[in-house]
Amino acid sequence: MIKLVLLRHGESEWNLANKFTGWKDVDLTPNGVAQANSAGQLLAEAGFQFDQAHTSVLKRAIKTLNITLEVMDQLWLPVTRSWRLNERHYGALQGLNKAETAEKYGDDQVHIWRRSYDIPPPKLDWDDERNIAGDRRYAHLDKEQIPLGECLKDTVERVLPYWHQNIVPDLKAGKRIVIAAHGNSLRSLVQYLDQVSKEEILKLNIPTGVPLVYELDDDLTPIKSYYLGNQDELAEAMNAVANQGKSQ
Amino acid sequence: MIKLVLLRHGESEWNLANKFTGWKDVDLTPNGVAQANSAGQLLAEAGFQFDQAHTSVLKRAIKTLNITLEVMDQLWLPVTRSWRLNERHYGALQGLNKAETAEKYGDDQVHIWRRSYDIPPPKLDWDDERNIAGDRRYAHLDKEQIPLGECLKDTVERVLPYWHQNIVPDLKAGKRIVIAAHGNSLRSLVQYLDQVSKEEILKLNIPTGVPLVYELDDDLTPIKSYYLGNQDELAEAMNAVANQGKSQ
Repeated sequence: MIKLVLLRHGESEWNLANKFTGWKDVDLTPNGVAQANSAGQLLAEAGFQFDQAHTSVLKRAIKTLNITLEVMDQLWLPVTRSWRLNERHYGALQGLNKAETAEKYGDDQVHIWRRSYDIPPPKLDWDDERNIAGDRRYAHLDKEQIPLGECLKDTVERVLPYWHQNIVPDLKAGKRIVIAAHGNSLRSLVQYLDQVSKEEILKLNIPTGVPLVYELDDDLTPIKSYYLGNQDELAEAMNAVANQGKSQ
Repeated sequence: MIKLVLLRHGESEWNLANKFTGWKDVDLTPNGVAQANSAGQLLAEAGFQFDQAHTSVLKRAIKTLNITLEVMDQLWLPVTRSWRLNERHYGALQGLNKAETAEKYGDDQVHIWRRSYDIPPPKLDWDDERNIAGDRRYAHLDKEQIPLGECLKDTVERVLPYWHQNIVPDLKAGKRIVIAAHGNSLRSLVQYLDQVSKEEILKLNIPTGVPLVYELDDDLTPIKSYYLGNQDELAEAMNAVANQGKSQ
């Protein structure tokens, strides 16, 4: 049986400020650091041993991974960072407060932007200072790969090539893998693995800093999946994520 | 001109306890964390931008690198970890207090073990609990690659293949590289780069947590090298390292 662990980064400064974050490289809050520590403890207590780690090129995911691996005493593991595991790019909404946006456009419109499978948010202008095209960590991307605003479908389409090229071969070779990433890059993987419909995936809220374990058969079909940790606290954490972006 | 930065990890728990550390995976002290932060600040102030980082599989080097890159806001860089950049393996001396060892064997003998180019320390028995053969991070090594006690020459011989295979091609391709490693794995590189004699290399004391910058020509011949930071503090730090392992 193959085990895979997905880990959403701990609370970030912009989670706390209730802003659309996307590719903005914000830091973890102290609570986010504590969540990453807790994730490491849960994984260590459950005896997880990894062979390879994957993460995005955003510090909230990288630091979550570093803290988790340090707690597990597995900081020596090889780690691969990729832009393909970055959060969904929120386009012109990036940096806006979710509650304010909800007040302005209405809860329903914000919910559509946040949770629609194929309706993208308003795009960034190329010259917008929030465009990451000038950031050297993305210098190797072709211009058409630079996102200006993604719907979840767009995110799925750039995450899955990474899954197939960089993760599947290792899983099939028996490597035990942890992926520390973001709400929507992980949702993309969950949708693919569990064959979730585009309607249902909108309702899936992955809590921050809680290891999500997949047990897969040899064809990488999920046998089961579960979160580590206290299940009551977990329900609360999932509820908290679901309520982000409501005006009240 | 090609720039390369070498960075010895910050003070570790066993540096502080004045013990022979070798491949024992000890943590940084709070002072070591502060040194790593300082290294990051010096590099950031000097405007260093890296493309690739290399480190060992020992947490004191990995954490030094992580902290340094975080301060520089370059935590997204690709990082490669290799056992070949580990500290010199101190054999049966590992875990012994340097001052006690000096009292027992005499300063001269300890100085020979610490600083001889080709006289190895007493070897570990294979069954010694300090043998790292059972540690899964080294599971891919052949039995004859598992060190039981290295002289500096042995360390040089396992570091240089990594230099030639993993670092030289990137430097020649124009990548800007930082290597966060250990006193003797870095001494190995310095000896090779500066063509230091085996007598002189014994006298070279690389201070912990201070970036050592090499400017290289296209053939990777050093044009010059220098430490970043306050030169008075630096002299003090180098002196402190040189005095480790004296009984008084």
